[in-house]
Amino acid sequence: MGIVKFSDTAATPIGAGRSRYLAHTDHLMAVVVDFNDGPASAPDPPHSHPHEQVSYVAAGELILVMGAEKTRLSAGDLFTVPANVPHAVQTLTPHVRLVDAFHPIREEFLKR
Amino acid sequence: MGIVKFSDTAATPIGAGRSRYLAHTDHLMAVVVDFNDGPASAPDPPHSHPHEQVSYVAAGELILVMGAEKTRLSAGDLFTVPANVPHAVQTLTPHVRLVDAFHPIREEFLKR
Repeated sequence: MGIVKFSDTAATPIGAGRSRYLAHTDHLMAVVVDFNDGPASAPDPPHSHPHEQVSYVAAGELILVMGAEKTRLSAGDLFTVPANVPHAVQTLTPHVRLVDAFHPIREEFLKR
Repeated sequence: MGIVKFSDTAATPIGAGRSRYLAHTDHLMAVVVDFNDGPASAPDPPHSHPHEQVSYVAAGELILVMGAEKTRLSAGDLFTVPANVPHAVQTLTPHVRLVDAFHPIREEFLKR
């Protein structure tokens, strides 16, 4: 896999106004997620997964919902999501970009 | 750990003009590295580590050196580094920001 050039990459649509592209090694995946459907009036439904997650806010502003806790985040911030903890985001700006790192890799993201 | 707000974070100096801040779960770490000492006239010395790495170029331009291969990268690009493969970067702009994800975590980055 090695190099994924943003300029050469066809991002995968993941719903209206959202797309992702990714790179991975055997046990580690980074997923660039663009939300172009913001701002949202409410958070997405909470979701969870057995994968550990650490995310970087690359652009925009959002609210991270984790349990009863809501945190406003902006570009440059990091957040962590332990395995199986429900979480959700609410975009506050027209464009939000997250870089989500996962361990292990999200095998379901490799299926077409 | 949970949330690392860029605005509240004292980045750790890692040499003249470079700093990092990070967040991690049990088996996954994301490290934001700012290079403010660019552009560089040559690549850094190659280094390697047993950790798998996937990196996102958040800002700037650089050359990634991996073995005999040199690749010019810019903001939005991703690259992967398998365990124990020597690699180096050469910054091409005054500021470069990388977001480096690692598995397992870089324990040595947690020591002060």
